[in-house]
Amino acid sequence: MVQSYELFYWPGIQGRGEFVRLALEEAGEDYEDVARGPGGTDALMAALKEGPTPSFAPPFLRAEGMTIGQTAAILLYLGERHGLAPREPAGRLWTHQLQLTIADLVAEAHDTHHPVGSGLYYEDQKQEALRRAQDFTSARIPKFFDYFSRVLGEKDYLLGPELTYADLSLFQVLEGLAYAFPQATARALAQHPNLEALRRRVTARPRIAAYLRSPRRIPFNDDGIFRRYPELDS
Amino acid sequence: MVQSYELFYWPGIQGRGEFVRLALEEAGEDYEDVARGPGGTDALMAALKEGPTPSFAPPFLRAEGMTIGQTAAILLYLGERHGLAPREPAGRLWTHQLQLTIADLVAEAHDTHHPVGSGLYYEDQKQEALRRAQDFTSARIPKFFDYFSRVLGEKDYLLGPELTYADLSLFQVLEGLAYAFPQATARALAQHPNLEALRRRVTARPRIAAYLRSPRRIPFNDDGIFRRYPELDS
Repeated sequence: MVQSYELFYWPGIQGRGEFVRLALEEAGEDYEDVARGPGGTDALMAALKEGPTPSFAPPFLRAEGMTIGQTAAILLYLGERHGLAPREPAGRLWTHQLQLTIADLVAEAHDTHHPVGSGLYYEDQKQEALRRAQDFTSARIPKFFDYFSRVLGEKDYLLGPELTYADLSLFQVLEGLAYAFPQATARALAQHPNLEALRRRVTARPRIAAYLRSPRRIPFNDDGIFRRYPELDS
Repeated sequence: MVQSYELFYWPGIQGRGEFVRLALEEAGEDYEDVARGPGGTDALMAALKEGPTPSFAPPFLRAEGMTIGQTAAILLYLGERHGLAPREPAGRLWTHQLQLTIADLVAEAHDTHHPVGSGLYYEDQKQEALRRAQDFTSARIPKFFDYFSRVLGEKDYLLGPELTYADLSLFQVLEGLAYAFPQATARALAQHPNLEALRRRVTARPRIAAYLRSPRRIPFNDDGIFRRYPELDS
């Protein structure tokens, strides 16, 4: 059977691929997670440089003869195609703006354990990581949570009664931060019960709940974006 | 006269606002750079939290009754409206994918002088900055330049004969890196003459050339994303 979507992302971690997986799962779409199959990493590395629209890095998605890279661009595409964003321009742009702000938070979360460079081991940048994580947990998490809490307000989802891909992504970041920085995240969520409610609301959606229980959901681990290094959580 | 566009960004630096300015200038559009006018910073701070689509941070653009934040989302909008991106979905997504990869490079360039936290002074993170900049100039600049050079190939612009907003943004990054890291950038550009040719091609476009000569173009300085700290260039 030929599946509609081929997702290319590093096997073994949720990483940025997870934001795409959540959108595909919520849409109820079948997809091949190519690099998790036999010979998958070789297929990923070959596909990375192929075709007229190569990606700088995974994830990228093959769909309708296109290859689309960059998480937020993939979600822009899937959101339009599967009703995971409003159709009118203003709502579509607002969803995308929120996604890009979530992407900024994700990049900052990553850099807590890699403040010097992604090509070096954590062990070789631990001192720098301690300082960066201190700033992240004390200043950045509260600032981002304040923002998203204000946007969410009393609504069910960021845009209103209907879920968008930005809600799925915010859910994923909250999960990741709660894994990596349990103390700092619990403290920040206690200030913003509406974000905790959004997290529970997404978790309870039937397709997401089924996905989270399935073997398709890779557990959080210390190779991904969100890593539980207790010394960085304060 | 009411202008079509109001741009909100920190006065005194090019920063991320510059990517929006370049698109507006190339489109020949009139715009008000609000925070550079009298009482501008107060107007910026007030506007940041107003309305149904508040931004986490500048830049944001008011247009057609919308307020759009996040540089790449603003360019997605302007690209469609002013012919600075293809109209068909595949080309529109590819332009956006390139823009998001440029945004990743911009964020990494920023973090060379702020590897610990954007809320701290450079002087308080100089040791960390030295290590991060070493990785950036030796590994990251070459990797990004390889990628964009491969995408550009023998074409005039990244997508072909027609300029898109991604070309304007790549031009701006090349200018910024050449300011901040003159040695490392010259070395990397020498490996990729097609990128240097793109830079000259954009510089020579009549509206861009006029803009660069005008007082609207803020000079690079050491408060922006691209800062010339000689100790970081190697």
